Amino acid sequence: MKVQSYIKGEWIDKGKETDLISAVTGDPIAQMVEADLDYKGACDYGRQEAGPELRAMSIHERAFKIKFLAQYLLKRKEDYYKLSTHTGATRQDSWIDIEGGIGSMFALSSKARINLSDLPYHVEGGPERLSRKGSFIGQHICVPRHGVGVHINAFNFPVWGMLEKLAPCIISGMPAIIKPSPVGSYLAYKVFQDMIESKLLPEGAIQFIAADKPGDLLDHLTSQDSVAFTGSASTGRKLKSHPNIIANSVRFNLEADSLNCSILGSDVTPDMEEFDLFVSEVAKEMTVKTGQKCTAIRRTIVPENQVDNVIATLKEKLEKTTIGDPSSKETQMGPLASTLQARRFEQQLSTLHETTESVYSNGHDQADDAFTSPKVLLCRQPMQVDAVHTVEAFGPMTTIMPYSNNEEAIKLANKADGSLVGSLFTADDKIAREITLGCAPYHGRFMVINKDSAKESTGHGSPMPQMVHGGPGRAGGGEEQGGARAVIHNMQRVALQGSPTTLKSITHQYIKGAKTKEADKHPFQQYFEELEVGEALTTDKHTVTKEDIERFADLSGDEFYAHTDPEAADRSLFGEIVAHGYFVLSRAAGLFVHPDEGPVMLNYGLENLRFTAPVAPGDTIQAKLIVKRKTVRQKKAKDKFPFGIVYWDVEVTNQDEKLVAEYTILTLIKRKHKLDMDIFEEE
Amino acid sequence: MKVQSYIKGEWIDKGKETDLISAVTGDPIAQMVEADLDYKGACDYGRQEAGPELRAMSIHERAFKIKFLAQYLLKRKEDYYKLSTHTGATRQDSWIDIEGGIGSMFALSSKARINLSDLPYHVEGGPERLSRKGSFIGQHICVPRHGVGVHINAFNFPVWGMLEKLAPCIISGMPAIIKPSPVGSYLAYKVFQDMIESKLLPEGAIQFIAADKPGDLLDHLTSQDSVAFTGSASTGRKLKSHPNIIANSVRFNLEADSLNCSILGSDVTPDMEEFDLFVSEVAKEMTVKTGQKCTAIRRTIVPENQVDNVIATLKEKLEKTTIGDPSSKETQMGPLASTLQARRFEQQLSTLHETTESVYSNGHDQADDAFTSPKVLLCRQPMQVDAVHTVEAFGPMTTIMPYSNNEEAIKLANKADGSLVGSLFTADDKIAREITLGCAPYHGRFMVINKDSAKESTGHGSPMPQMVHGGPGRAGGGEEQGGARAVIHNMQRVALQGSPTTLKSITHQYIKGAKTKEADKHPFQQYFEELEVGEALTTDKHTVTKEDIERFADLSGDEFYAHTDPEAADRSLFGEIVAHGYFVLSRAAGLFVHPDEGPVMLNYGLENLRFTAPVAPGDTIQAKLIVKRKTVRQKKAKDKFPFGIVYWDVEVTNQDEKLVAEYTILTLIKRKHKLDMDIFEEE
Repeated sequence: MKVQSYIKGEWIDKGKETDLISAVTGDPIAQMVEADLDYKGACDYGRQEAGPELRAMSIHERAFKIKFLAQYLLKRKEDYYKLSTHTGATRQDSWIDIEGGIGSMFALSSKARINLSDLPYHVEGGPERLSRKGSFIGQHICVPRHGVGVHINAFNFPVWGMLEKLAPCIISGMPAIIKPSPVGSYLAYKVFQDMIESKLLPEGAIQFIAADKPGDLLDHLTSQDSVAFTGSASTGRKLKSHPNIIANSVRFNLEADSLNCSILGSDVTPDMEEFDLFVSEVAKEMTVKTGQKCTAIRRTIVPENQVDNVIATLKEKLEKTTIGDPSSKETQMGPLASTLQARRFEQQLSTLHETTESVYSNGHDQADDAFTSPKVLLCRQPMQVDAVHTVEAFGPMTTIMPYSNNEEAIKLANKADGSLVGSLFTADDKIAREITLGCAPYHGRFMVINKDSAKESTGHGSPMPQMVHGGPGRAGGGEEQGGARAVIHNMQRVALQGSPTTLKSITHQYIKGAKTKEADKHPFQQYFEELEVGEALTTDKHTVTKEDIERFADLSGDEFYAHTDPEAADRSLFGEIVAHGYFVLSRAAGLFVHPDEGPVMLNYGLENLRFTAPVAPGDTIQAKLIVKRKTVRQKKAKDKFPFGIVYWDVEVTNQDEKLVAEYTILTLIKRKHKLDMDIFEEE
Repeated sequence: MKVQSYIKGEWIDKGKETDLISAVTGDPIAQMVEADLDYKGACDYGRQEAGPELRAMSIHERAFKIKFLAQYLLKRKEDYYKLSTHTGATRQDSWIDIEGGIGSMFALSSKARINLSDLPYHVEGGPERLSRKGSFIGQHICVPRHGVGVHINAFNFPVWGMLEKLAPCIISGMPAIIKPSPVGSYLAYKVFQDMIESKLLPEGAIQFIAADKPGDLLDHLTSQDSVAFTGSASTGRKLKSHPNIIANSVRFNLEADSLNCSILGSDVTPDMEEFDLFVSEVAKEMTVKTGQKCTAIRRTIVPENQVDNVIATLKEKLEKTTIGDPSSKETQMGPLASTLQARRFEQQLSTLHETTESVYSNGHDQADDAFTSPKVLLCRQPMQVDAVHTVEAFGPMTTIMPYSNNEEAIKLANKADGSLVGSLFTADDKIAREITLGCAPYHGRFMVINKDSAKESTGHGSPMPQMVHGGPGRAGGGEEQGGARAVIHNMQRVALQGSPTTLKSITHQYIKGAKTKEADKHPFQQYFEELEVGEALTTDKHTVTKEDIERFADLSGDEFYAHTDPEAADRSLFGEIVAHGYFVLSRAAGLFVHPDEGPVMLNYGLENLRFTAPVAPGDTIQAKLIVKRKTVRQKKAKDKFPFGIVYWDVEVTNQDEKLVAEYTILTLIKRKHKLDMDIFEEE
């Protein structure tokens, strides 16, 4: 197997060949072909070939591409598992990398389709009123940038690391240039090859750099490009302060491994479930991926009176860990990713040994292979010792640190000066509150586990695509993932200002105050494709009577005094009997709903309702229904029809044209036509 | 007047004294006292003295402090106007700086109270489901950081520049260290003195550095601190790549002046209102603040067939500009901020003269004072000339650039490689759409003006606190302001994970799925202070009948076939007659509303309603009302009672405990007690 670069639409098969070594057998399993690449050309190619094509699609279309790509890769997962073994990964380790990575694509695609506009850009939040009469307003939009995303990935998660960065970048509308770590690059390469083979993305949307270092790539980046780096803090800082990165304000997201901690609450005793959950989590985080995770628990913070119990139980669990060939089913922990990693791990451990005691190790050190064993250190005075909070040994290890009270536990946790994640095991929600809020400013993620949440917990070490990933300080100060935020991070936010009508025209979304167009045909009788943003129905009028209010009180059972008791109503804010807000809402629907069967399937929700003025008997109400925005939904096998969601703005006014209620309703509307994405789903 | 530093609770009155010169008279009007400051001590003082006190307040309390501070300063504005004249500012120029700055405090305070939690931190967005059964979920919160915000401000807006950074920093819960530019620092100093005198902020919340350069301040910043810099791109880049900033991942927001443009649409002819609006805006942006604005229109992009008309009209307007002593009412443009600025302006102009023609200037150059005149340059081949897109002359000037089609106009606009703002004058919304979306990735703000929006426009040059301010590339890649975002930018976002009940306890907000506590007394009979987050009312049940549905259809007028026509309903998604969603909503209210007078004043809104399952005749519904979150509202003179907003989660279930509807309602609830903030308002 040759790990080749793919740039400017071509596989580069000539160059210096370097053996890529199996961490298990020590044998070469692939050759990396390192060529003298035209990095400037690759950047230009991405920007010019794929950029315009990606930007012409809507966010949802791009998100569907990522979903289909995930489906395509999932079918081929066994190929990846086979290769992954050579990185030292057990089946379980590989699951995190491979299915975790593909799962992130599904989740980010879904989040983008739920939370972002079905347009090439996202219309973010509501309009901002900037003037008294509303003729000049503001609206934020997030647009694709005209650059490339450069993704420099770490060796420990060749698949996840590539896909979790790639998915939001592509969904945002920006092509990517992927530079994996050489270690494990054969696995990233295989997945990349399949992505090219799938032909699901426009040519140039993804390029691949097979190289030890990314050459002069950073010299060619412009203000429209971005870099996402995962790896060591030292390399990350060097790249972040690269003169061209600084000169062009190139966005740089840095994700560095950190000295994460887990804390055992002072309420927890060995007879409680939380005790065992804690020790198991520490053991798991030490051994999964042989401890080579940016999020692993390097620091185990324990009430001083539980230190001995924790050590004893942890030893017991580690004793049972089977170390060996990761392809064997019995194996729970494989080797480190390379002999070089093994030597580095030993060096870092020896630094830590200067200020700690070794309380557990089961040998297998200083060998010439990549294997090692779990190591538990104990630092008795962790408030006084800096090394345990700053020196990271990237392997199966943790340092146990005693604490005497909650305040000290918080100080210890924060002494790592910025972590990707921290966790706490406690059955006491008061302790949870105190410690979590105390640690929060120093952590990107913080997990609290008790016996209720443990069963379904996704674990201390797992970044979830729905939640932000990244931490302050030592962890790099970056932020990735986090649902739709993951996509927005890649885009340019722009504050638009102008008249509502102009902003409607720019955004292709109805903006309150914009001119509308009265529909020729009742909107509920039109298919999804026929409805135009800004198309409106102005209804007939209804004069509200005392009887209406009495009948509504009787039917709903809502006898609130403001609707039923004239004397009490006099004393109220309103000063008289007023109609129920829900009556106004219901009567408005009565005014705008078309009774007949048609493309409208159902009204399934309502948002941002405000009752802006009371409605009293004698007041005459009228509604205006306006197509606000549209979103295609994918057909699923169980759906009878292809459909979409239409959001309608509703404005209810009284006889003085005063607004009495405003809100958005959500309806499912049949589509006339199937789309490519429906057809793909049916396959 | 002595411009002194204020650090560690003391005015530093000894040090090297430097004259600060009036831009108008050339006379010294103050002395800056530059001492050898203990920068490390100042940072520690802010972090340790004021940090904990600020963080103990809720976001709303901090926002009220900023509001009251704005009121305090507004009363003293005439003092600031007097000093501001010496910076060269006319009354109109000073208005932007002084009342614009104070106005930003009001607006950001208001936005924070409307959009952020009334807690020390903000609970951001909804919970994220991370597990099948929902026992393990995620919730993002944004917490105050344990550092100081270092604000390095530019000379051109001594008041606005200070206040627009200070307000969101304090509201976020972080103390600030303010370093103004020495030029105009006497004005910033006067405002700062008043803020200290007001005693509205905790001691240490704001410190002031009187110095030319910020000494070794940056060496002492930690991962919890942040820097916000406004000024030249070159200084900004230098500070951003400072080794300690990089090493500690110190957040750095860079706002650099850029070569902003305004474009005249190709549809606009001299007889149209938009033509005059465009030329007036260009003239205004040249002369306001004597062109010393990061957002000024340096590049005037004009259809080639309108170049002569634009030049002629622009000349006419500039001829009428009265230049002179800014304290005189007739004066429309004062001097530049200093003779040094005047000499720099001339140098930059002479560079631009190499590639442009001068088409307007009315003398007064090379004098030894700070006065200058407006200058209009013309670059006939702007696609071929780089200097006009990169060399910024910081004074009353613009370069006119012809374009031949929309694509070229976009390319020219984007050639500045990142701008704070761009604008477009057109009466054609199609042109608006094409040019705006084409320019968007290179701009932080983009304004489109036609005759409808012009009257109320806040102008090309004015960042609004509701909209983000900052641009990519040359403009620094930063983002400030933008309503509640301005506050969030200063905070740490943390992904919390755990059981809903634990997360409710940590966040002090009800999280769906958390344990609730049945209320002893009907919640609508309790005052704001009595209601506890998580307190719940589980209602009686109601069995829905066919008659209910018929009566509701009749009363509301909503005769949609799914509710009224059995045969058509059979063919629908539901397969049978179902109740109106609005009936379910109304009947649920009937179940939970308490009819009597009490602390509940009104239900004024509803959010995030989803109908999750149909309700058919025979189904029995029940509602559960849960206190989700609470927000104090300030008493206003016109309000009879002090009150707050209570958000309630409502869950409606059927006889199978299946959720049929869920939503949040918003009510106004009376408070028993007045608070400090109510009392302040009444003064």
